[in-house]
Amino acid sequence: MKVGILGTGDVGRALAKGFVTLGHEVKLGGRDAKNEKATAWAKEAGALGSAGTFADSAAFGEIVVLATQGTAYESVLSAAGPQNFKGKVVIDTTNPLDFSKGMPPTLAVGHTDSGGEQVQRALPEARVVKCFNIVGNVSMFRPSYPDGAPDMLICGNDKAAKEQVTKLLHDFGWQNVTDLGAIQVSRHLESLCITWVLYGAATGSWGHALKFLRK
Amino acid sequence: MKVGILGTGDVGRALAKGFVTLGHEVKLGGRDAKNEKATAWAKEAGALGSAGTFADSAAFGEIVVLATQGTAYESVLSAAGPQNFKGKVVIDTTNPLDFSKGMPPTLAVGHTDSGGEQVQRALPEARVVKCFNIVGNVSMFRPSYPDGAPDMLICGNDKAAKEQVTKLLHDFGWQNVTDLGAIQVSRHLESLCITWVLYGAATGSWGHALKFLRK
Repeated sequence: MKVGILGTGDVGRALAKGFVTLGHEVKLGGRDAKNEKATAWAKEAGALGSAGTFADSAAFGEIVVLATQGTAYESVLSAAGPQNFKGKVVIDTTNPLDFSKGMPPTLAVGHTDSGGEQVQRALPEARVVKCFNIVGNVSMFRPSYPDGAPDMLICGNDKAAKEQVTKLLHDFGWQNVTDLGAIQVSRHLESLCITWVLYGAATGSWGHALKFLRK
Repeated sequence: MKVGILGTGDVGRALAKGFVTLGHEVKLGGRDAKNEKATAWAKEAGALGSAGTFADSAAFGEIVVLATQGTAYESVLSAAGPQNFKGKVVIDTTNPLDFSKGMPPTLAVGHTDSGGEQVQRALPEARVVKCFNIVGNVSMFRPSYPDGAPDMLICGNDKAAKEQVTKLLHDFGWQNVTDLGAIQVSRHLESLCITWVLYGAATGSWGHALKFLRK
């Protein structure tokens, strides 16, 4: 199969390597045809690899992979030529990350508030900790799974409150508790609830719980 | 410790049971003092359990747990009395779920668009599949973890495109691929990227990958 990959960074090259390893032809596309990363990669990849512009890659691919910076999609797709995508499968690997306020990034698109933030605003003198919202109620106390211990992810603005809740979570049987930051992180923990629900709907599983596998 | 739990549904009662099992005193609060679920629970819980209104529970607790419907927080906190939360740790377990358009629910707060949707709008004749955006590039091809196989979650509007990408993912070494729905689900997969980043920042791990543990 012919695969066009737009984006010559780590993601683009990691996927390019995967496709070539499986015997697919890959054209790695950058903003200009002489992109150093793309030409160096093509040389290393051998007969199945080549380099080109975004438009070259999009035209080449039976499947096209979008692996540029997420916030650059407009200029990338414009340069690639929307006509080159007609009817094709496009694998979108991107995230619209906003680094303008430093690390960690936020999402540049569509994530503007959360229930956790609303509760904290409604109770300015309380110390709100978002917790337990990413699992079903059957798993909240003494969660038990054959394949390991799930993760509880929490957030909030008050460090001592989060430490107290973390101790409580240990008492509740949660071995792995991670504090992800301020109450704004509720945007992502509440979103994770939807992901949990959609996974349940797709698989018929309703007792599942998240774990981050580690190397 | 004295714990006030606002909300008499499955979550409130699951957490109430956990706290009582650990020897804490729990007052389970409902909208009115004669809430049947709360009084039945209190009877069953024994000496450590009692029932009351939202305000009774909030005043009682050294820690207060918010376990009502997420979208009802304003009326719940107003009934509970914001003065009853002053300086206290408040565990917010809620999600602002909007069921008005049926199942699956969406978030009622702050989630309005995504990069994946933008890309699909920019390429109306392409069949965009969101994929690979929830893991680091080192895990994209032949992911390998000592504690099991991670999950790849995808979404998009075209069923055949998602089936083709799923086959590709199997070739790439992803054993567990779940289609979570239409391209709008990118809101949650992109949010999951931020959760992934925050977990990495909190733990120093950068090779992690999500798995939903199953019973």
